[in-house]
Amino acid sequence: MSLLAVGSVAFDSIRTPHGEVEEILGGSATFFSVTASWFTSVSVVAVVGEDFGKEHFDIFHQRSIDTTGVEQVPGRTFRWKGEYLGDMNQAHTLDTQLNVFETFVPKIPPAYLDTQYLFLGNIVPVLQLNVRRALPHLLASALDTMNYWIQGMPEDLAKVLATVDILLINEGEARLLSKQNNLKKAAAIIRKLGPRVVVIKRGEHGATLFGPDSVFTVPAYPLDEVFDPTGAGDTFAGGFMGHLARTGDLSDANLRRAAVYGSVMGSFAVEEFGLGRLLRLTPGEIESRYREIKQLTHFDA
Amino acid sequence: MSLLAVGSVAFDSIRTPHGEVEEILGGSATFFSVTASWFTSVSVVAVVGEDFGKEHFDIFHQRSIDTTGVEQVPGRTFRWKGEYLGDMNQAHTLDTQLNVFETFVPKIPPAYLDTQYLFLGNIVPVLQLNVRRALPHLLASALDTMNYWIQGMPEDLAKVLATVDILLINEGEARLLSKQNNLKKAAAIIRKLGPRVVVIKRGEHGATLFGPDSVFTVPAYPLDEVFDPTGAGDTFAGGFMGHLARTGDLSDANLRRAAVYGSVMGSFAVEEFGLGRLLRLTPGEIESRYREIKQLTHFDA
Repeated sequence: MSLLAVGSVAFDSIRTPHGEVEEILGGSATFFSVTASWFTSVSVVAVVGEDFGKEHFDIFHQRSIDTTGVEQVPGRTFRWKGEYLGDMNQAHTLDTQLNVFETFVPKIPPAYLDTQYLFLGNIVPVLQLNVRRALPHLLASALDTMNYWIQGMPEDLAKVLATVDILLINEGEARLLSKQNNLKKAAAIIRKLGPRVVVIKRGEHGATLFGPDSVFTVPAYPLDEVFDPTGAGDTFAGGFMGHLARTGDLSDANLRRAAVYGSVMGSFAVEEFGLGRLLRLTPGEIESRYREIKQLTHFDA
Repeated sequence: MSLLAVGSVAFDSIRTPHGEVEEILGGSATFFSVTASWFTSVSVVAVVGEDFGKEHFDIFHQRSIDTTGVEQVPGRTFRWKGEYLGDMNQAHTLDTQLNVFETFVPKIPPAYLDTQYLFLGNIVPVLQLNVRRALPHLLASALDTMNYWIQGMPEDLAKVLATVDILLINEGEARLLSKQNNLKKAAAIIRKLGPRVVVIKRGEHGATLFGPDSVFTVPAYPLDEVFDPTGAGDTFAGGFMGHLARTGDLSDANLRRAAVYGSVMGSFAVEEFGLGRLLRLTPGEIESRYREIKQLTHFDA
């Protein structure tokens, strides 16, 4: 079924212990949509500048992603520069140039108004809310956010939280949002704010899904090398929502499978800089890693 | 089958955000043996002082633990005082009084010489080695150690590592021992030092077992409250080795079950101060939590 992503498209400059790259294609909507494109058809609402060329649009089109909603406006595309040291769990931002993203107002093309699955990437909460309200036919909506909005715009964030089905959030953000250190209690508090499903991402430790019927944990796939963690969270979301939209099944058993696909896709994302690995995948590789996570977690009752 | 634990018996004074206790029974051999006693018959080799009363021995005997190997000598029993703040993952030692533990030399009673399963708790590596060498009929031996010995006595530690089957170690210690940040690579390096099974404990994130045939992850059971983490690692080891000794089965499938029992028992340990919860268990509660971890991790292939 139809899946729409709203978020950022950016040029990322990244330094890790393994090397560095300059101005490669990134952003939450980009990682999400390229990932989800392995599962279902995806449309994107985002903004880019005049420096966003045909070669960049081609990356989306190569994955059959609908970019009708990617508005191109005067100015430069959003740029982010960051660095990972030592344990690779924490990005250190070196430079942020919002550029055209600073005045981004998502515009939903009429053809998208019957969208059934929605991912609201990490943007200003009030913009997320407007998008959510503009789409009356949703079967499931998912939200990402960050410390900056949790601390700076709690009222707006509360409004959008009250309207979504799923919150995908990392461990530190969950603690900040709930003012609760214990993750089980934190998830219970967040679920009372609106989302009936809370997925807490724990980086190299995997993720835990707190749903209406049960709690489910999925580990991260053990890799010999985490090359570049940029985009891993949005990639997890892309696998998760991609699987839900592909199947149209929101049962407890299928939410679990979706979380495993999230972990699978996240593990591919970090194997190379940027979108590298995510563009070179095959459906067979995805299914094979899904089975490896099954093997990694299986024990006899 | 017979399971022997060698390690410390101590009086712990503990402060956590939930309260504090003075001089309660603790120590690696204590937590291990009380835990393993739910699975199989256990003997202990340790040392205590003159202040170790009948009421303390009774705690072991109440769990049918053989204390023939617990030597009582002039002086005071080992004392440890520690505090947990904020995230509860790290103990801050406030005071350590080794007392009779300082000159502890494990003496294996003749009746224990045909022991088949051995746990070497965290003591001086050369003493661990002597115990290991004194037991010719072992089917499986497991070792715990700590930063202090990894950094201070690497040659002695290497000797004992070369003789054991299983190393149970926490995440930070595994990185220190292997000089490798990536846990998959760290486990591969450690396995080349001797143990064919390396279990890396990750506190609230669970544990990962790196064996000859596969890798297995088990989550920590999500608790509403971690009350006192003291002894959780030795408790994990007690559930793990207790299940192996009970079944006499070292297959890949059974190592996985053993790791789940380790996680189950660790989750009980942290629910109360000291041995509190571990002494009040029932076999039904253990099996019930095992099934809950199954439910927590299960997804369809």
